[in-house]
Amino acid sequence: MIKKVLIANRGEIAVRVIRACREMGIKTVAVYSEADKDALHTQLADEAICIGPARSKDSYLNMSNIISAAVLTGAQAIHPGFGFLSENAMFASMCEECNIKFIGPDAETIDMMGNKAKAREVMKNADVPIVPGCEGTIDSLEEAINESKKIGYPLMIKAAAGGGGKGIRIVYSENDLEMAYNSAKSEAKANFNDDTIYMEKFIEEPKHIEIQILADNYGNVVHLGERDCSLQRRNQKVLEEAPSLILTEDLRKTMGETAVRAAKAVNYKGVGTIEFLVDKHRNFYFMEMNTRIQVEHPITELVTGIDLVKEQIQVANGEELSINQEDIKIEGHAIECRINAENPDMNFAPSPGKVEILIVPGGNGVRVDSAVYQGYNIPPYYDSMISKLIVHGNTREEAISKMKRALCEYEIRGIDTNIDFQLKILNNENYIKGNFDTGFIQKEILK
Amino acid sequence: MIKKVLIANRGEIAVRVIRACREMGIKTVAVYSEADKDALHTQLADEAICIGPARSKDSYLNMSNIISAAVLTGAQAIHPGFGFLSENAMFASMCEECNIKFIGPDAETIDMMGNKAKAREVMKNADVPIVPGCEGTIDSLEEAINESKKIGYPLMIKAAAGGGGKGIRIVYSENDLEMAYNSAKSEAKANFNDDTIYMEKFIEEPKHIEIQILADNYGNVVHLGERDCSLQRRNQKVLEEAPSLILTEDLRKTMGETAVRAAKAVNYKGVGTIEFLVDKHRNFYFMEMNTRIQVEHPITELVTGIDLVKEQIQVANGEELSINQEDIKIEGHAIECRINAENPDMNFAPSPGKVEILIVPGGNGVRVDSAVYQGYNIPPYYDSMISKLIVHGNTREEAISKMKRALCEYEIRGIDTNIDFQLKILNNENYIKGNFDTGFIQKEILK
Repeated sequence: MIKKVLIANRGEIAVRVIRACREMGIKTVAVYSEADKDALHTQLADEAICIGPARSKDSYLNMSNIISAAVLTGAQAIHPGFGFLSENAMFASMCEECNIKFIGPDAETIDMMGNKAKAREVMKNADVPIVPGCEGTIDSLEEAINESKKIGYPLMIKAAAGGGGKGIRIVYSENDLEMAYNSAKSEAKANFNDDTIYMEKFIEEPKHIEIQILADNYGNVVHLGERDCSLQRRNQKVLEEAPSLILTEDLRKTMGETAVRAAKAVNYKGVGTIEFLVDKHRNFYFMEMNTRIQVEHPITELVTGIDLVKEQIQVANGEELSINQEDIKIEGHAIECRINAENPDMNFAPSPGKVEILIVPGGNGVRVDSAVYQGYNIPPYYDSMISKLIVHGNTREEAISKMKRALCEYEIRGIDTNIDFQLKILNNENYIKGNFDTGFIQKEILK
Repeated sequence: MIKKVLIANRGEIAVRVIRACREMGIKTVAVYSEADKDALHTQLADEAICIGPARSKDSYLNMSNIISAAVLTGAQAIHPGFGFLSENAMFASMCEECNIKFIGPDAETIDMMGNKAKAREVMKNADVPIVPGCEGTIDSLEEAINESKKIGYPLMIKAAAGGGGKGIRIVYSENDLEMAYNSAKSEAKANFNDDTIYMEKFIEEPKHIEIQILADNYGNVVHLGERDCSLQRRNQKVLEEAPSLILTEDLRKTMGETAVRAAKAVNYKGVGTIEFLVDKHRNFYFMEMNTRIQVEHPITELVTGIDLVKEQIQVANGEELSINQEDIKIEGHAIECRINAENPDMNFAPSPGKVEILIVPGGNGVRVDSAVYQGYNIPPYYDSMISKLIVHGNTREEAISKMKRALCEYEIRGIDTNIDFQLKILNNENYIKGNFDTGFIQKEILK
């Protein structure tokens, strides 16, 4: 039985996990960098341990310090949140070797899905539709040229170890191939210390639709419907909603069953997400699997009534799933806006600093998952997302109007935020009508 | 069509109504006293008009100033919230005379239900069970003595114009009758400018269970289940929950149907509440009808998914109910804690003043309806309730653990609050088991 959990993360997701643990009667240990001693997660946990200097690599990515903190405090499990070490197979292995439960799937699963080329292979073998592309990796420019002839343009070059939109290049003709090949490789090397790349067909004007799955240790897997995460800027999600306007009941069922098949193919455990691209003709293609809780998980919680973080911990605890596929109903409509400390008018430059005034929206159907408070000094070292505003309405129309009024109430002074930028999206006629794909923000909002 | 609403109230309920209007695309006008120029409702509304000095009778109870503000701003309707003018039949009449829609039932209904003795008569005729008591009012001590012999002890003396627990005396023997009679009359006079009183049997160890009803202008009435409001201090509700542990499905149905009958008997329009006492044997008795939105309405919203303030406005707009009784399902469990600026250790003395630090809880299943922000100066002139913390869980157990963690997160410094007092209730074994009646707080918490 898990009685104490160490949360190997910071910001709102650390707060999120602490809340779930507290509601389950589980003690919590926060870890924090020297820059985060006044952070909300540090304050809220039952215990808090400093694990190093501000820079992530010295603290939130410092595996031995984190594991030492767990041993020291007697935590039986580690929740990795998202980002940082959440998809690091070596960290998951180290936890298990130290007899600490890693709250997530097995290291082998993380490893398999973390390598995008390997993941494609596995999914192809499990009859999950994949984007047409090369077999395995591309190891030379010559091979890239040969493969491009088979795949056809436009195509994408992607880092095999990629994530967060890094190491990706779209190539429209052979003229651009060499430059794209070289720059993708060097970006991959810089970001992941691994310059392995692969290529696939570039789906034009796609929707990004992902399926949430939940699996226990006994082979039971359910899906919890989809999230439409098409609204992205530079491959970073900005606003997400559930359900998606473009999914028919039939397509939802087919994609859901495909996601369950994908999860079973990798012996999945816990919560995970299968990301798909959906083209204009509603063909869907496997993009990648995220083997962790996602930023946008709350919209699924609001439309299903299922607490994903609690489920994650229960699975880690060896419990069998308490829900069947038939029990899962999608009710109403949920939207999440990521609130970032950044300046959209200055190319979204991060805007750390002191929160001088903070008025948080509330009321019916409004959920705030935040890591800031008035007087808090946002450090410059980490991701600029400081809060998530999530709403639930009976219809999409109601959810949109609710999000607009909540954003208008949200007052954050002292730093710049993307609140007005989010309002621009919500007021856009094409967004309201549901006419959007992954290029929407670039084409409609930033034009 | 209502396009602009004036909110004749302050505090969290004014904010609540502004939020509903904004989500419906309706413009809002706040009214505020000189003490409330920095209040949240004053800031959030599209327009704000000062209606007089701090004291309620000069501002929030000043009918002509409020109606002038509505005329001046072109508001087509007035939402009265709760308290203040919300159950003032004369105000409702004045609004209608000025061609301003009063968002609530007709003046006649308010009048009828506002006089507790008259209300008993009406309910008795509609076959709604009432507490045994005198016919009509008690006009002399002699009459009180005679009636007491018929009713038997213990009995209650109640102000006919009463509300909010004022003008009520419990009498256990004839020895105490004269003093109770006199003090109830003078308290009634002081509070309601009307010393009419009546008497009824005092139900020992009762539960306070109320049924939410919703009616349109065309005779359609539905009920939205019950709220258990037994946790009271001096007849003021402290913590409410829905559903009630003591109601069987059958009893819920019977009480619901009785409430619908009661509403139909008075030609009810909009949202209203029928309050019942339920004795140990699960007999229920009509106590009173509240002809307005109630403080504790959010718990009903969370278990039904129906927005009561929006429904209220739709009914005022002449729309037919969009829901049938069969559509209404009670899902999960909701609890509300009233957060008051008061000091439980000093006999709950109000604690106005500046909110120096404020950290508001959030996360999954947590709703905050608040009227304060960090730096706000709570004025000493009004009710001490500053916020409502409401949670929704899949089970009562989950709702309790969620409320406990949310209360622990709620940080309000600079003033005293009842947060620790609420935690005492939630940690009490008898509360957890559901062993409580209206005397619980006095017997178990304040003992």
